[in-house]
Amino acid sequence: MYGSNKVKYFNIPTKICNENGLYQLKEIIQEHDAKRIFLVTGKNSFEKSGFLDVTKNLLDGRDVFVYNNVEGSPTLEGVQDALEKLIEYDSDMVIGAGGGAVMDIGKIISCVYRNDTSILGFNGDFTQGKIKEKQVPFVAIPTTAGTGSEVTPFSVFYKDKRKQSFGGPEKYIVSPDYAILDSELTLSLPGKITAATGLDALTQLFEAYFNKNSNSLTDNFIPTNIAEVFGYLEKTYKYPNEVKFRERMMYASLWSGIAISRTTTGPAHSLSYPMTAHFDLEHGFACALTLPEILKFNYDRSDLVRKKLNGLVEYIFPSINKNHFEILYDSIQSLKSQIGAPLTLKDAKIDDKSIITKEGFTPERMFNSIEVPTEEDVNVILSTIEM
Amino acid sequence: MYGSNKVKYFNIPTKICNENGLYQLKEIIQEHDAKRIFLVTGKNSFEKSGFLDVTKNLLDGRDVFVYNNVEGSPTLEGVQDALEKLIEYDSDMVIGAGGGAVMDIGKIISCVYRNDTSILGFNGDFTQGKIKEKQVPFVAIPTTAGTGSEVTPFSVFYKDKRKQSFGGPEKYIVSPDYAILDSELTLSLPGKITAATGLDALTQLFEAYFNKNSNSLTDNFIPTNIAEVFGYLEKTYKYPNEVKFRERMMYASLWSGIAISRTTTGPAHSLSYPMTAHFDLEHGFACALTLPEILKFNYDRSDLVRKKLNGLVEYIFPSINKNHFEILYDSIQSLKSQIGAPLTLKDAKIDDKSIITKEGFTPERMFNSIEVPTEEDVNVILSTIEM
Repeated sequence: MYGSNKVKYFNIPTKICNENGLYQLKEIIQEHDAKRIFLVTGKNSFEKSGFLDVTKNLLDGRDVFVYNNVEGSPTLEGVQDALEKLIEYDSDMVIGAGGGAVMDIGKIISCVYRNDTSILGFNGDFTQGKIKEKQVPFVAIPTTAGTGSEVTPFSVFYKDKRKQSFGGPEKYIVSPDYAILDSELTLSLPGKITAATGLDALTQLFEAYFNKNSNSLTDNFIPTNIAEVFGYLEKTYKYPNEVKFRERMMYASLWSGIAISRTTTGPAHSLSYPMTAHFDLEHGFACALTLPEILKFNYDRSDLVRKKLNGLVEYIFPSINKNHFEILYDSIQSLKSQIGAPLTLKDAKIDDKSIITKEGFTPERMFNSIEVPTEEDVNVILSTIEM
Repeated sequence: MYGSNKVKYFNIPTKICNENGLYQLKEIIQEHDAKRIFLVTGKNSFEKSGFLDVTKNLLDGRDVFVYNNVEGSPTLEGVQDALEKLIEYDSDMVIGAGGGAVMDIGKIISCVYRNDTSILGFNGDFTQGKIKEKQVPFVAIPTTAGTGSEVTPFSVFYKDKRKQSFGGPEKYIVSPDYAILDSELTLSLPGKITAATGLDALTQLFEAYFNKNSNSLTDNFIPTNIAEVFGYLEKTYKYPNEVKFRERMMYASLWSGIAISRTTTGPAHSLSYPMTAHFDLEHGFACALTLPEILKFNYDRSDLVRKKLNGLVEYIFPSINKNHFEILYDSIQSLKSQIGAPLTLKDAKIDDKSIITKEGFTPERMFNSIEVPTEEDVNVILSTIEM
C-alpha cells in the first residue's frame, strides 16, 4: 500500500493557461456556457489582487455570486458553509481566485456538488465518498505562489483541529479543470505570505525529490525548480513589485504541485499540520521549519540520498567549495532568515513539542521519506530545532 | 490563426507509466477489460526489442492480433491497411510498441476506428474528419527515444510523398491514453536509429524553445532536457548497452514531445519532410541538418533569440569561454559528427535543393519561428549546407 507503487501514473489533467490567461477565462466560460458563476475568494486578498477589476468585463453579463468568506486555513465548517451557498445559488461553474485555502474549498465543493450528498454532503466525512463525476467545472486562479494547488488533486481542511484530506494522488477528478496563471495577481501579496508560500513550494520540491515515489520523470524537472526558488524567492521578497520575479516563483510553485501530485509529500509536511492547527503558524513556515533536519536525517543514513543530494548541490551551487550537505543546509537556513521565516520552534512560538509528534506523525507520509523516521526520531528532530 | 494564441493550454492528458511500466500494462488491460488486443509493431524492431518476451505473461489469456507490417515512415496506404485489419479483427484496445511510425499509425487507427468511417475511413482525408470520441484506448510503448510521440497529439504520414498531419495541438484526443516507458526496450536499437531519433528529440527541444508559442512554462523544462541530450546522446551511441544512458535519452525525448505539444515545431521540421519522402533520409537526421542554420538565422536577427540562446548556453556549457552562438553551433555539429549524422546535403545524398524548398516551405511552421524565414531565406540556408 505504501511506497513506490502507490501512484501509478504521471499526467497533468488540468488545462493550464499561462498566456493571456485571464482573457482566456472568457472563452472558458463561453465554452462551458456557464451562466451562474460561483466565485470563491479570500476575505483579505480578494480586492487587493485586482482580480475583480481585471475580470469585470470578462464576467459581464453573467450572474456571479462572490463567496469571499475564506480566511486562514479551511475548516470543515468553512467547507460546509461554501457548499451550502453553492447549492443554494445553484451555479454551473466554480472559480477560485486566491491562495491555497480558496483552492481547497473550490476543489471540494465543485466535486461534491450535485453528487450524492446523502453520503457526501454534511456528515463531515468527505473522504469516504466516491465521487464519480465532477458536476461543475472548477477554474483555479492562484493569487499566491506556493502550494501549486491549482494543479494538484489534493484538498486539505481541518476538522476539530486535525488535518483532513480530500482527493489524493489517483483521484485526478479533484484537480482543477483549468488553472489560469497570471503573476500580476500576486503583486499585492504581503511579504509574510510571499515568504511562507514560497517556502511551501520549496518544501514540496524537496519532499518530492527525496521521496520513495520519485522517479526519473519527477527528477527531470524538480532540480530546475529548486534552483528557481533559491534564485528568486529572496529577490521576490525584497523586490515585491518585480513581476518577472513573481512569475519565476509562480512557475516554481506550479511545478512543485505537479511534483507532489506524483509523489505526495513527506515528514516535513506531516509535522506541519499541527503547527498550523494549534499555533497558527503559516503552512509554508511550518513546513520549512523541520525541512533541513529531515534532509539531514536522510542524508546521514542513506547512500541514495547522499548521491542525489550531492548532485543537486553541484547543479544549484556549482562553484561553492564546501561539504555538499552543509551548503544546502546553510542555503535553506539563510534563505529563511533573509525572508523573515522562523528558524526554531521558539521563533515560531510553539511551546509544546509533544502535540506536534502526537498529531503530526502520520505513518504514510513518514513512509514516503527515503529514510523513514520513527516517532522517536521525530522527537529528536524537534528537539534539535527547539531553541 | 498563427502565432502565440494558437495553442491555449498546456496539459499532459496521457497517463505516463514509468516505473514497472510493462507490469502495469496488465492492470491497464484489466481496467479496460480488453479482450481482443490489436498490437501494432515495427517489422524490424519488434522481436529485437524483447517486447514480446517480456509481455508474454501479461498478454496471456487475451486474443492478440500482431500487426507488424510497419516499416520506415508511415504512408496513407500503410494506415489504411492497419485500419482495415483493425476493423476486421474488431479489437477493444490498440497497443503500439515501436518507434514513431508505429505510434503514428496506432494514434490514427484508435481514433478513426468505430467513428464515422464514411468520412474518415478510406477517402484518404483523415485530417478533415471530426473525431468526437476515441473508441478504443491506445497504449503507446516506445522502443526508440526520439519523437516523444508517446505523449503528443500529432500523427504524421505521407500521401503521394507529401507529409500529412492527423491531430494537432488542440486535438488532445489523438494523444495516447497511456504511455509506458521502459528504457530496456531501447537497448537493441541500432546505432544509426539511436543517433537519428536522438537528434529528432534535440531538434524538437530547440524548435520549441525558439518558438513563438513558447512561454515560461515550456521554458521551465526545455533547457534541462537540451542539456540531457548534449550530456547523453553521444554516450548512448558509444555505449549502447548502458540502460542508464538510454533512460536519460528516453526522458529527454518524452519532454521534447511535451514541449512540441504546446508549441508545435518550426522550420527545421518543415524542411525535413521532403528530405525523408524523396531521399529516404532518417527523420531525425533530416531535422538536424538545417537546425544549426535555422538557429543562426534567428540569432542574427532577433534580440529575444540572442538573449534566450546566450542564457541557454551559459546554463548548458557554463565554463566555455567563446562566443555564445559559436559554442552552441559547434556543439551541435560536433555531436552530429560523433554519432555519424550527415552535416551537409551532400553527406545526406540530397542532390535537389529545389524540391526541399518547394515542398518543405510550410508557412505555418515557418511562422512558429521567432524570426520567420522567407522562401529565399530558406534557399540561402540550404545553399550554406550544400557541400
